[in-house]
Amino acid sequence: MDMIVVMKASAAAADVQRVVDRVSELGLTPHLSKGEFRTIVGAIGAKIVGSREQLGQLPGVDEVMAITQPYKLASREFHEADTILDIKGIRVGGPHVNIIAGPCAIESREVLFEVGRAVRDAGAAILRGGAYKPRSSPYSFKGMGREGLELLQEAGHELNMPTITEVVDPRDVAIVYEYADIFQVGARNMQNFNLLLEVGKTDKPVFIKRGLAASITELLMSAEYVLSQGNHRVIVCERGIRTFADEVRFTLDVSAVPVIQERSHLPVFIDPSHAAGKRDLVPALTLAGIAAGAAGAIVEVHSCPDRALCDGPQAVLPGNFVKLMEQIRQISDVVGHRVTLWGRDDDEESPRRATPGGWAT
Amino acid sequence: MDMIVVMKASAAAADVQRVVDRVSELGLTPHLSKGEFRTIVGAIGAKIVGSREQLGQLPGVDEVMAITQPYKLASREFHEADTILDIKGIRVGGPHVNIIAGPCAIESREVLFEVGRAVRDAGAAILRGGAYKPRSSPYSFKGMGREGLELLQEAGHELNMPTITEVVDPRDVAIVYEYADIFQVGARNMQNFNLLLEVGKTDKPVFIKRGLAASITELLMSAEYVLSQGNHRVIVCERGIRTFADEVRFTLDVSAVPVIQERSHLPVFIDPSHAAGKRDLVPALTLAGIAAGAAGAIVEVHSCPDRALCDGPQAVLPGNFVKLMEQIRQISDVVGHRVTLWGRDDDEESPRRATPGGWAT
Amino acid sequence: MDMIVVMKASAAAADVQRVVDRVSELGLTPHLSKGEFRTIVGAIGAKIVGSREQLGQLPGVDEVMAITQPYKLASREFHEADTILDIKGIRVGGPHVNIIAGPCAIESREVLFEVGRAVRDAGAAILRGGAYKPRSSPYSFKGMGREGLELLQEAGHELNMPTITEVVDPRDVAIVYEYADIFQVGARNMQNFNLLLEVGKTDKPVFIKRGLAASITELLMSAEYVLSQGNHRVIVCERGIRTFADEVRFTLDVSAVPVIQERSHLPVFIDPSHAAGKRDLVPALTLAGIAAGAAGAIVEVHSCPDRALCDGPQAVLPGNFVKLMEQIRQISDVVGHRVTLWGRDDDEESPRRATPGGWAT
Amino acid sequence: MDMIVVMKASAAAADVQRVVDRVSELGLTPHLSKGEFRTIVGAIGAKIVGSREQLGQLPGVDEVMAITQPYKLASREFHEADTILDIKGIRVGGPHVNIIAGPCAIESREVLFEVGRAVRDAGAAILRGGAYKPRSSPYSFKGMGREGLELLQEAGHELNMPTITEVVDPRDVAIVYEYADIFQVGARNMQNFNLLLEVGKTDKPVFIKRGLAASITELLMSAEYVLSQGNHRVIVCERGIRTFADEVRFTLDVSAVPVIQERSHLPVFIDPSHAAGKRDLVPALTLAGIAAGAAGAIVEVHSCPDRALCDGPQAVLPGNFVKLMEQIRQISDVVGHRVTLWGRDDDEESPRRATPGGWAT
Repeated sequence: MDMIVVMKASAAAADVQRVVDRVSELGLTPHLSKGEFRTIVGAIGAKIVGSREQLGQLPGVDEVMAITQPYKLASREFHEADTILDIKGIRVGGPHVNIIAGPCAIESREVLFEVGRAVRDAGAAILRGGAYKPRSSPYSFKGMGREGLELLQEAGHELNMPTITEVVDPRDVAIVYEYADIFQVGARNMQNFNLLLEVGKTDKPVFIKRGLAASITELLMSAEYVLSQGNHRVIVCERGIRTFADEVRFTLDVSAVPVIQERSHLPVFIDPSHAAGKRDLVPALTLAGIAAGAAGAIVEVHSCPDRALCDGPQAVLPGNFVKLMEQIRQISDVVGHRVTLWGRDDDEESPRRATPGGWAT
Repeated sequence: MDMIVVMKASAAAADVQRVVDRVSELGLTPHLSKGEFRTIVGAIGAKIVGSREQLGQLPGVDEVMAITQPYKLASREFHEADTILDIKGIRVGGPHVNIIAGPCAIESREVLFEVGRAVRDAGAAILRGGAYKPRSSPYSFKGMGREGLELLQEAGHELNMPTITEVVDPRDVAIVYEYADIFQVGARNMQNFNLLLEVGKTDKPVFIKRGLAASITELLMSAEYVLSQGNHRVIVCERGIRTFADEVRFTLDVSAVPVIQERSHLPVFIDPSHAAGKRDLVPALTLAGIAAGAAGAIVEVHSCPDRALCDGPQAVLPGNFVKLMEQIRQISDVVGHRVTLWGRDDDEESPRRATPGGWAT
Repeated sequence: MDMIVVMKASAAAADVQRVVDRVSELGLTPHLSKGEFRTIVGAIGAKIVGSREQLGQLPGVDEVMAITQPYKLASREFHEADTILDIKGIRVGGPHVNIIAGPCAIESREVLFEVGRAVRDAGAAILRGGAYKPRSSPYSFKGMGREGLELLQEAGHELNMPTITEVVDPRDVAIVYEYADIFQVGARNMQNFNLLLEVGKTDKPVFIKRGLAASITELLMSAEYVLSQGNHRVIVCERGIRTFADEVRFTLDVSAVPVIQERSHLPVFIDPSHAAGKRDLVPALTLAGIAAGAAGAIVEVHSCPDRALCDGPQAVLPGNFVKLMEQIRQISDVVGHRVTLWGRDDDEESPRRATPGGWAT
Repeated sequence: MDMIVVMKASAAAADVQRVVDRVSELGLTPHLSKGEFRTIVGAIGAKIVGSREQLGQLPGVDEVMAITQPYKLASREFHEADTILDIKGIRVGGPHVNIIAGPCAIESREVLFEVGRAVRDAGAAILRGGAYKPRSSPYSFKGMGREGLELLQEAGHELNMPTITEVVDPRDVAIVYEYADIFQVGARNMQNFNLLLEVGKTDKPVFIKRGLAASITELLMSAEYVLSQGNHRVIVCERGIRTFADEVRFTLDVSAVPVIQERSHLPVFIDPSHAAGKRDLVPALTLAGIAAGAAGAIVEVHSCPDRALCDGPQAVLPGNFVKLMEQIRQISDVVGHRVTLWGRDDDEESPRRATPGGWAT
């Protein structure tokens, strides 16, 4: 991280010298620039995080400004081309648009398979379903645990779809690894750093949702946690931030899509369901995200949402999901992207034709 | 405004009676509902604003909740169908998508006409340009005033486009009325109530931008100010709200589009330029808004933005605007809308063909 | 405003030269500093607002950072000592703590005098009361106008207290000037720049409330508007900002007090009533603000708040105000400040003893 | 959780009946109230979380409003008197004000003991020090782990102070339990529900910091997680929320103190250090919190902050901490509270006199 130390107009020569010395001591290269009124010290090559804080406290220093981002492996500078993941034959990122769909929580074999079949037939590429649900109330339904994971795996095999499920505890990484294809790290765990380190040690893709008050830099720093452990298969997801605007559950920050794409090579998804909190708003937000260039969306679908044990009001009905998929496909085309139409036999350009009896990869 | 008064579990019978009496005194009809633990008093038909505050202070009252919105004329209940305005022959609202474009401030005849011609040729329907600019610094360029209005009017006539310009002072309503076709009330004046009353007394359309910390209810209450004066030609515009997310100037709250459409019959636009604060982000945000169902967008375009006196960094270049208009057109089609392609001779379904020598209306 | 232009690592020599040239063209002095990887151009002495935006768009530029604040007259650099105003003999600012109290709106002669007498006897220095009320609903009570101003003036004379009242329209500045001692510019008008210019042309103190989404820089820029017109008698007031935290009406940003004091010489007040929106919270917030070092507070007091036409729920009862004043006095002492105990005969150190028949100043 | 179901004006009788039936089916008691225009169904006694969501989706329902809070054990209704904890002889909560102080991270034996002695001598009651630090960058110093815990325990014994340290992983609960007296759950882990469950199964006090975008209801729900496991020794802490106001690191929401006290019996602390992010602001914020009625503050102190490995800029110097403690003591008196002056021999009313060789409790 390169920095600029701006001295106060009143700083003495000794103050400047002290800064230059400390910059060297920190292993940085100082570059002095004396202006008419102020002196500026460039500090290039910072290796030690915390350097900025230390320099900011020296006498005569007005401000220390970072001129590079604190993440490396997640940055566009480090890896210029879009990262395109291959998840069981499905390409994610770059021009590929993938829709992840399914129920919020796995509640029963019946609902999971019914919804899974519906979303696959409509064109969803990846199946979602929660087995461990973080709930703000200790009295809420918290998921079926291992039994849910088994159902999800079974559904994934039968429907020939990769699966994604949330992991909330470092102690659960091994079991989730066993059953699911993609780890989801939820918004409330975006800065559960030990969890990030654990999934970073695996070789399965990690889908990280932005915390509800996280800056984009912080989101990419969380991606950096995973990348720094050697797992380069990371997807980030904008899912709505907390603002004063309480007409919706969270404010979908659609500008995060192009901002992240400018700074990072990682695929960016959006989660319209949790942002909206209300199914009527889900189609508009989904299309907004796709039009803004997102690499995909994760959408909650439920066949009987008023009986759902979790987040029913935001689940789209299967019938509406069919229509939504069609609009997603068209808008992707307008912005130069292409939807992965998983499981649709008429899709000549499906990235991978399902092969009976197993995965192609 | 109908309300529910929830009594505390500990409220005495006399407390309940006092609430019932006060509800009647306020000209409301009380509806008593005794639960096992709590009593609830419905208060139907509130005419006096402030009733809620008064009831909330009576002994034994736990909470007073509004069950209807405080605006009337702006509400979908009052007017179920979408309002479609006719602005010099251009239809605004409902399925019609209109793009307003032009420079941020009117700086010179040359730039205004050059940009105006470019955006008209690309398909923009309405010409924007500021003559009175609200600026956070007293030392910034504040617009050309009357001279700017004259240029705008001239450009509107020559290019055969309706014009929109900002009014910031109730004392300027008369002069702006004289020269421009649409009043713009900016975000910082959304609750300049005397200004709203003044434009409400005219018969020209009023384009109200959401304040940067305004709720949707407050935005619709500001529309109500105009409507209450007899001017029914109101457009509202989401232009980005202020949140912790400082990677962009403001966070475009794209969910405001479907939320407002659910509650109100008024046309909803978006302003991607002020939200983004940076031209690279403008196309993504514009397309997001159109995909979410907006009735249009107001976009800043400048032929030489690095010399612009105001907001240059967010102005799109004319060449990029052409491409953007094409994508807007396609995405409008996907969501069942239709762009007004003003000035394009090949547009058979232009709402009004320009007639030489004057306006058709 | 001094700036630093950080060039991209990839910037060519010609890019750097272009920036240097443009810096000179803008009347700034360029200071070149070539680092190992990046070049930095200091730009000292900016007179033209907008320079930053222009430079930021040149090829090869990574970022332009301001290293000085955009306000001048309001800054601590410009005027190092605390500004202490003399308002009809009352000293405001520096170590002096003054409490402004009274009803939200002036509703009747009786209530105004009753509340005024109560707050004066308890130790309030300045009398507040609104004659022009900005209300978010067009159907709400908007104040008594001139009749209210007459009552306020009469109460001020009889109680020997300076008066403050809100002005919401540039057209009302003359009449408010005639009747009141201090102009209040409300949060919703903090960026009503024409209003600021008008009160800036008078010689009466201006009390500016922070807008509900305004940064401290923006608040001080609004002060700068008044100062730039020659009126140096400005007070700024933190009144709560809009955040996601909806348990209170607005979040009182108590840290604004020391932050503003560090940057500016102007007195800083707090408004606990509008922040809290609920009278039970007003004492805690008032004491928090005084403990943080505020130069005073503006508190709504009402003798019969459940009949008030405006903001009754947040008005403190006169009896509680007496106790609050005593705690304010004690906490002021702890932080090295001193309350102006206006009208209390036992206050030997009252800044100015009331003289029969007129003001001492 | 009791609820009110507001039917739409257009709801049919069958819609109302369906709601009444579903209310019964959910184990709730329905209370029908037919108004002139609208029907309201009260639903009393909800045991099933999720009932609200389910009812909200039935045809004809306009809105479902909760009229009681979702937490029970944390609520003032459940336990009317203030909870006063006894932590190794120190009383926490009610009228007792306790200051927790020490370095951010434990970096070395020398610094820990030096700072510990300084804060104890100044009057701090409890010693803080981090052994496991959650850091947004994977490249930052993350604490000394077990070695740090050993030092903390040793310092606590030698200085005769209870100790507090952060736990970030459910797997670390056992080891932290072994060495420290109070578990701290940081803001980023406020909704790490498995961690809350683990500390809830122990018998040591849990100090929960509010998440940076958490509502007060969510904070109390996190307390409820701990309480629901049988651990009734919970303290909550306001530490600044994330807002648009970027002049400070976080906005200290001082109103949270009286709001939580109204709703809950649990002791409420404030953390001025993390809110401010800058030591100059810490005294003002600390005093603001104490004046607002907080049961204490957690303050970072460092003897050599410009060499600190973590959060140096916000650490108060020991000399300034002495002065701050004196002001805390005085302000506590003003608001009817009393500081625990731990370790000061002249404090006749110290809750527990230190006894040589061990703890009094």
